[in-house]
Amino acid sequence: MTPDDADGTRLGPGREFRLIESILADREGGERVRVGPGDDAAVLDDGSIHSIDLAVEGVHFRFDWMTPEEAGFRTVAGALSDLAAMAAEPVGFLVSLGIPQKGGGEGKGEDDGPGDLARSIMGGVRKAEKAFGAPLLGGDLTRSPGPVIIDVAVIGTVGSRAPLLRSGAKTGDGLWVTGTLGEAATAIDCLRRGETPAPALLRRYRSPKPRIAEAIHLAETLGATAGLDLSDGLAGDAGHLAAASGVGIELEGHTLPLSRDAVEALGRERAVELALSGGDDYELLVALPDPISTEEVENFGKRFDLTLTRVGRVVEGSGVRIRTAPGAPARPLARGGWDHFGTEETRTES
Amino acid sequence: MTPDDADGTRLGPGREFRLIESILADREGGERVRVGPGDDAAVLDDGSIHSIDLAVEGVHFRFDWMTPEEAGFRTVAGALSDLAAMAAEPVGFLVSLGIPQKGGGEGKGEDDGPGDLARSIMGGVRKAEKAFGAPLLGGDLTRSPGPVIIDVAVIGTVGSRAPLLRSGAKTGDGLWVTGTLGEAATAIDCLRRGETPAPALLRRYRSPKPRIAEAIHLAETLGATAGLDLSDGLAGDAGHLAAASGVGIELEGHTLPLSRDAVEALGRERAVELALSGGDDYELLVALPDPISTEEVENFGKRFDLTLTRVGRVVEGSGVRIRTAPGAPARPLARGGWDHFGTEETRTES
Repeated sequence: MTPDDADGTRLGPGREFRLIESILADREGGERVRVGPGDDAAVLDDGSIHSIDLAVEGVHFRFDWMTPEEAGFRTVAGALSDLAAMAAEPVGFLVSLGIPQKGGGEGKGEDDGPGDLARSIMGGVRKAEKAFGAPLLGGDLTRSPGPVIIDVAVIGTVGSRAPLLRSGAKTGDGLWVTGTLGEAATAIDCLRRGETPAPALLRRYRSPKPRIAEAIHLAETLGATAGLDLSDGLAGDAGHLAAASGVGIELEGHTLPLSRDAVEALGRERAVELALSGGDDYELLVALPDPISTEEVENFGKRFDLTLTRVGRVVEGSGVRIRTAPGAPARPLARGGWDHFGTEETRTES
Repeated sequence: MTPDDADGTRLGPGREFRLIESILADREGGERVRVGPGDDAAVLDDGSIHSIDLAVEGVHFRFDWMTPEEAGFRTVAGALSDLAAMAAEPVGFLVSLGIPQKGGGEGKGEDDGPGDLARSIMGGVRKAEKAFGAPLLGGDLTRSPGPVIIDVAVIGTVGSRAPLLRSGAKTGDGLWVTGTLGEAATAIDCLRRGETPAPALLRRYRSPKPRIAEAIHLAETLGATAGLDLSDGLAGDAGHLAAASGVGIELEGHTLPLSRDAVEALGRERAVELALSGGDDYELLVALPDPISTEEVENFGKRFDLTLTRVGRVVEGSGVRIRTAPGAPARPLARGGWDHFGTEETRTES
């Protein structure tokens, strides 16, 4: 349900979201459906969680920026991140592959047959399977007349626990993110300019990690009231959380967790922009009821080797505002991104 | 898991099946996985059934042969047919859509925006939702740099019943099919030659019906020992059943249920060829232990308004043989089809 495509000719985040809404609206659901379309994944009455994530060559990945194996790994990781968004454990997944006759991919694999390309992608899929403890249950393999297609359907479960939804954030909750933001977008920014990103940035872009155990901890131990995974950038995803919860959000721009590599590569201002507008980090954004003690934050850090940072709070009203310095006035963020933050330049798009 | 693509440059049924096998082989599965990759769908220990079906413009559908709405309907119906293959009830499904900027599709929709095309396809998806009682649980929508992409992941359940597998057929079982065979392939054959197929043939091609209730009846009431849906043609699918069950199969070519429309359009010999080699009918092939009484066959016909026809039997050995006339010697069928039956000409392929 996360639109990863973004360039001058794309559907556009606003239009695309309205399109998804109009297509999925007026769902009758079914007697077994607890949460239908609109959140990161669907929830059935047996606690099973279901989501699907389509990745297309030239839109979501390019073979001059990552290997077929990395594309396979990354697509599975991104799909499993939708389970993390619901604080669900993975049960398994299915993969559809569309492979061009000639091996596909500009600048890569022209000499390989379709079988070699499929095997390379599936090598990455199997790495993800092992890394994240989610078995591959089945798949489909077909010819593509054009781009390589990788579509991943994930199955998870929350058992008898409540899923973490986008709705549920309460006025007064703190707004928190895991890890550092904008690193994948910084890697893309460098690649787009023909530069070689720092290895850590490239790793974030090519080998994201779904924050599954982290999400369950945030929901169960720290009582998260709402949350999602940051696949569309903090600004846009905070907007989704605000809209679904019927609240406003105030972000503190000076608190955003940036990586040293991103700041070194692009400077602080641009790194902040990409932290707000860049997707592909797959970190978590959650609303946590106050108070969260320093000890709890430190315990989280030790347990998961990952920072947990307060980046704002839930307020009355609607939409997302941001303060660029302590005490500065909170300025509204446009729907889907902060305009001059250059959302058009931060994605995989060629 | 059913390769619908077929032309001179495709992966080829033999190579493709071996490719799928090699990619999915050596699965570790998982503690929750009762039946992993290799059958029509996966079965988890809670009785849930999972499958995925990728359809790509120019390979599985063409917009000069069907509308976007029909392509949406047909892809969902085909995916749900994998649940019928397991004698499972549908619980719901997810849809990934890849839509080109310009509306996509040769000869169709050049003036439509991507939103209109997506809406038309989803109109067909919603028709299938209502027709087959399976709610749409969620989806993904993205830009495609080339063909329209429709990928459908289905979720079903057998509850506490046993799923119908490809393995399990016993020597001495009769081999039965539902409905008539080769009609969708006959429609494609006519379209390929620029002729207009009879309306009933076009309907079979554009609006297939997953035989869900029929499959449950065959499994529960008539005790089917093995079965699958005919998405790859009787010859090929009988081969899959034989291989999975470790048995041989003898088909009686003169008993194949052909439609009058197909025989009128192409003559009896070609109609038999397409009944054996043509996919896309989505009828069921099952092994039923003898005896099946005339009354049981008639009851099936009345209950489902659908014929049930004995087309052969399960024998010791391996592979598929066919007798073209009563008493004639049974001749071997090559893996994946009867060579001179012209499998290359019967698919949607452009």
